Amino acid sequence: MNVIAIQKILREFAEERDWNRFHSPKNIATALAVEAAELLENFQWLTEEESRHLPKRPEDYRAVREEIADVQIYLLRLADLLDIGLEDAVRDKLGKNAEKYPVALAKGNALKYNRLGK
Amino acid sequence: MNVIAIQKILREFAEERDWNRFHSPKNIATALAVEAAELLENFQWLTEEESRHLPKRPEDYRAVREEIADVQIYLLRLADLLDIGLEDAVRDKLGKNAEKYPVALAKGNALKYNRLGK
Amino acid sequence: MNVIAIQKILREFAEERDWNRFHSPKNIATALAVEAAELLENFQWLTEEESRHLPKRPEDYRAVREEIADVQIYLLRLADLLDIGLEDAVRDKLGKNAEKYPVALAKGNALKYNRLGK
Amino acid sequence: MNVIAIQKILREFAEERDWNRFHSPKNIATALAVEAAELLENFQWLTEEESRHLPKRPEDYRAVREEIADVQIYLLRLADLLDIGLEDAVRDKLGKNAEKYPVALAKGNALKYNRLGK
Repeated sequence: MNVIAIQKILREFAEERDWNRFHSPKNIATALAVEAAELLENFQWLTEEESRHLPKRPEDYRAVREEIADVQIYLLRLADLLDIGLEDAVRDKLGKNAEKYPVALAKGNALKYNRLGK
Repeated sequence: MNVIAIQKILREFAEERDWNRFHSPKNIATALAVEAAELLENFQWLTEEESRHLPKRPEDYRAVREEIADVQIYLLRLADLLDIGLEDAVRDKLGKNAEKYPVALAKGNALKYNRLGK
Repeated sequence: MNVIAIQKILREFAEERDWNRFHSPKNIATALAVEAAELLENFQWLTEEESRHLPKRPEDYRAVREEIADVQIYLLRLADLLDIGLEDAVRDKLGKNAEKYPVALAKGNALKYNRLGK
Repeated sequence: MNVIAIQKILREFAEERDWNRFHSPKNIATALAVEAAELLENFQWLTEEESRHLPKRPEDYRAVREEIADVQIYLLRLADLLDIGLEDAVRDKLGKNAEKYPVALAKGNALKYNRLGK
């Protein structure tokens, strides 16, 4: 994904519409949480099994695809506003996760890391 | 961002830990919304102005960077599970947004698109 | 539940701590959404069936009880700040819901009301 | 608020529509988080100051009143499903909060309790 190019589009989109005064990191983090909940809404009455077969429900699938895009867009915007490199942040976190959830302890176990091994 | 490479790491991470049974799209969408709220939590008592200067608060800045990574990770995982191309979904949505928010109507106005022009 | 009495306690709690400047309705609505996500976090890796037996897991049950209280507290505070009568608002909504989801159409069907009957 | 009476209405509402199979605590906690985000959506582009004057915007005010009701309804339902006394849970939490946020330390300070006094 061309993060830099999309962030540039988003920045110009906001500037052209004079939206920067609304785009404080606080407000964008709020909008992101709202979009993540709208994404979740599509799953709320499905069983887990049904959710695994979402691609077979074209209307729901399209809605989910669009909400995923909305979340990604606000995430790109927020990272840009705060000057955070998205891929670097992800790779650093992947390293941390590998330490927090060693295979031997985490296998088949979804407990939060701080309860693992207790 | 190398979406395919990171999704591969995440897929293997889940497989090694036997986590696929927990990773229904429904559960991942839930985890994503929870992480988005944890990200938001860092901003909840800040003013908008303070949030614009977050990089000057190293402890908060580091926490936000990590939560942004968590949201991105679950988003990559969800897109992979549902076989949704993340960049394509974003670009399609950017096209829609340009139609929904024409500069002439949206300038300086944060109303939701369906109330614009009323 | 003695809504008025609890709202009075919350109001005085905020005043004594000089917290009213933080307690804009916007910030309280944010804190409420964050607490609702923390409540949800307790369920995210449980199956639906496991969630029905939560009372048998004392540690999780206690955590859920406390998060439910947090959500209720912010809801009471927000309603107070906006001068909204909580019970009246609930009863009005129950009336609306009875209209939106007639038994004949809604039976065994969790579709959102605007898709019912299509 | 007559918690018992409203919970009875909600229980019968679900039974008549054969919705109990959808109403696992996990799903209700999800619906609650989604509603809390919809409530928050009404505030996302407002300044804090504007949010304090929400009652002067009749359309937004009505929408917020309805979302507050939705959150309260799911909270009542969840407490009922898990056999948690709502008022007792709130009063226990108020006692804890008084301990966690002593006036001397918390005055004018919105830091999370575990960072207070550091």
